[in-house]
Amino acid sequence: MNRNDLLNRLKMTLRAGDVHAFALAVLNTPHADLADALADEPIRDVMNMLMALPQTQRAGLFSYLPQEQQDALIGIMPKDTVVRLFEHLPSDDRADIFNRLSHAAQNQLLPAMAKVEREDLLKMASYPDGSVGAVTSSDYAVVSPDSTAAQALAYLRTHAPAKETIYVVYVQDAQKRLLGTLSLRELVLAAPEQNIADLMRPDPIYARAEWPAEQAAALIRRYDLLAVPVINGGQRMIGIVTVDDAMDIEKEQDATSLSRFGGSATLEGDDLDLRESSFGKIVKTRLFWLVILTFFGVITSTYVSHQEDILSEVLVLAAFIAPIVDMGGNTGSQSATLVIRSMALGELTLRWKDIWFVIKRELPVALTMGVVICLLEAVLAYFSKGVGIEVLATVGLSMLACTVIGGVVGAMLPFLARRIGTDPATLSSPLITSVMDLVGVFIYFGFAYLFLGDLLVAN
Amino acid sequence: MNRNDLLNRLKMTLRAGDVHAFALAVLNTPHADLADALADEPIRDVMNMLMALPQTQRAGLFSYLPQEQQDALIGIMPKDTVVRLFEHLPSDDRADIFNRLSHAAQNQLLPAMAKVEREDLLKMASYPDGSVGAVTSSDYAVVSPDSTAAQALAYLRTHAPAKETIYVVYVQDAQKRLLGTLSLRELVLAAPEQNIADLMRPDPIYARAEWPAEQAAALIRRYDLLAVPVINGGQRMIGIVTVDDAMDIEKEQDATSLSRFGGSATLEGDDLDLRESSFGKIVKTRLFWLVILTFFGVITSTYVSHQEDILSEVLVLAAFIAPIVDMGGNTGSQSATLVIRSMALGELTLRWKDIWFVIKRELPVALTMGVVICLLEAVLAYFSKGVGIEVLATVGLSMLACTVIGGVVGAMLPFLARRIGTDPATLSSPLITSVMDLVGVFIYFGFAYLFLGDLLVAN
Repeated sequence: MNRNDLLNRLKMTLRAGDVHAFALAVLNTPHADLADALADEPIRDVMNMLMALPQTQRAGLFSYLPQEQQDALIGIMPKDTVVRLFEHLPSDDRADIFNRLSHAAQNQLLPAMAKVEREDLLKMASYPDGSVGAVTSSDYAVVSPDSTAAQALAYLRTHAPAKETIYVVYVQDAQKRLLGTLSLRELVLAAPEQNIADLMRPDPIYARAEWPAEQAAALIRRYDLLAVPVINGGQRMIGIVTVDDAMDIEKEQDATSLSRFGGSATLEGDDLDLRESSFGKIVKTRLFWLVILTFFGVITSTYVSHQEDILSEVLVLAAFIAPIVDMGGNTGSQSATLVIRSMALGELTLRWKDIWFVIKRELPVALTMGVVICLLEAVLAYFSKGVGIEVLATVGLSMLACTVIGGVVGAMLPFLARRIGTDPATLSSPLITSVMDLVGVFIYFGFAYLFLGDLLVAN
Repeated sequence: MNRNDLLNRLKMTLRAGDVHAFALAVLNTPHADLADALADEPIRDVMNMLMALPQTQRAGLFSYLPQEQQDALIGIMPKDTVVRLFEHLPSDDRADIFNRLSHAAQNQLLPAMAKVEREDLLKMASYPDGSVGAVTSSDYAVVSPDSTAAQALAYLRTHAPAKETIYVVYVQDAQKRLLGTLSLRELVLAAPEQNIADLMRPDPIYARAEWPAEQAAALIRRYDLLAVPVINGGQRMIGIVTVDDAMDIEKEQDATSLSRFGGSATLEGDDLDLRESSFGKIVKTRLFWLVILTFFGVITSTYVSHQEDILSEVLVLAAFIAPIVDMGGNTGSQSATLVIRSMALGELTLRWKDIWFVIKRELPVALTMGVVICLLEAVLAYFSKGVGIEVLATVGLSMLACTVIGGVVGAMLPFLARRIGTDPATLSSPLITSVMDLVGVFIYFGFAYLFLGDLLVAN
């Protein structure tokens, strides 16, 4: 059955109030699809369906619902149900949802929870948003280095955590320090009497809880891991970040890079989100950049209006200002994003060798494009306005200079951004364009005075 | 030992020609780090190191090297070594590398390969670049529905493929049709005598070989899968796409979205890459967009130069053109990318409900920002140039209109792009800006004639 049929069937089941049919569907349908089916339904209907499920499935499905629905459900569920729900939630989701509760709700919830889950929650919820700790799950499999493969497998069979996270098994000493890792595959394929200490990979790749979450995701992608262990300040292992969370982290990071490049980078380093950011934050952030851009625009047009001597002498010069200065910004926007792309794919880093490589590629490209556009512009100018050779020279050379300078400067900006430790996408396209506009008018009128300046002297 | 120490130690080992030390390092170091250590070393030194490794490790490490190094090594390796290398490469890498060989090299290689690997190669290499088939690996574990859990585990122990891809086991009938999936975890935790047919999840999520690779990656991310099975036209399973490849696919897709948004979208739908795209292709693609943008710029400035009546009457109007029209493009760039971001994170789709939601959010934001900037501009205008009320009205209302229209139009563009089936990022920031420039001058001079038109009649 295709996905639309499935969604419709589930919705009809929901609206008919058929809790038993729904409970059956939950066993056979991926949580992501169930969450979509529940997406726009009345909150009380959603709650009725959830209440028909056993605790573990209820918590599992709950963790897939969008944040607004989760918050609304907690608001209408009886207190006891909420407590049980929190005890069964996956540990990383539990911490996230807890951190969204009001202080009053949090204080009501904690004392009512079972000790183990409460302590885990307090630990996990203490990590700041955006850190590795905040996306860490404490559901993972531990074995001692002294066990045999058979003992370890037997232990896993009885104690396997609910999550799929037993594909990597972590070998810890008595102080919870991480000694090595072992894949479930290696465990299954090993001779039963082999020692874990001999089988494990020592010196494992790890992430620190205080690092940005993106670093854990990058490690997972670079080393093709299924999960990366997380260490706290005291060298103790506190949990893992799984590959599915890593994919979500990178997706959000890259999607936000695009909105930053569009001109909406926040100053606090967090993300502007259409659904979740407040009206005030969106206005404040976007206005900040618009004012900066307007400032550049005012400087540029003030400079232009002060060139009235030469503009009134050679009126046609005014007609070419915009196409010429735009070229710098457009070319710069192209080269900047091509460099950012290569950086994101690991093809370029901050080495001089890479900077030189980019210049070597960009210069001939920008020159070629500059020459073509410059000739195009000159031809247009000649045939549409019948201008003299001095104006053609001014227009043509300015176009060429703007293209080349725009392209090379644009290509260098991401390196500069990385050097000062900021996301290159913060140097947004509108910003590149505005800066190039200013550079462009200086170049244009520079050439204008060079070729046509004698006209002013003559008068 | 930290990563820099490691890299330096490996490089010294390499330069000392110490093949034995290198072979030892290979056992204990992740391939990604080894590849980095070999990155800029002379190709003959790299080959000597590879020749010191057993076939499987050699092929595994080879698959991590950058494309230029792989091609160079194949060029200097003896033919027999190349044949053995191809036989041991992971099946998806094998197909990719094969497709880069010259026809002559391909024709030399194929007859010399062992039958099984040759047939696999021909099958996998036949899928077009960018399709699911092209990133499919044929290394996966198959069990029959009639086996028991114990039999399946025993089979896996003896036949486990080299890759980590036994974490999902695929249940096929005799015609290689996919009946269901089973995780290794479920297999290990099952009672030994349970039947596979009873344990498996029927109706599995799958991808078709002809779909774009991004769709397989999106399925893996949506359903938190470790791998997704790939079906061909005849409903037969041909392989799997693994989660590590999915992460790489999404990273490349998102990085390219950014460069498209910067103004470098290709017409063929492939990606412009700084290292790998030819000079001609880069120039052609970027020039295409620069010409279009110049075209818009020429129309805009031609229109402006035809307003010489009102411009010569109210000279100061010229000074405000740029800041006002830029506002539309800058605001539009912001709103467009915020919408694209939400779409990428699955928070917005093509429903009218979502379109309405975006308009409801953007309108008040753009209005507020428009009013603030409009007042700022009016104050600046009054104090710096001492203009009259009509000019203030023209400037102020134009600023407001441009901001609001720019913001709302920018927010709607991604929906339009999706509706016509193209990546929203193709509507680049320079394009949004250029279109808004044109819209902006119409608005500006519209207001100018409204408030100041009587000055022309009077003359």
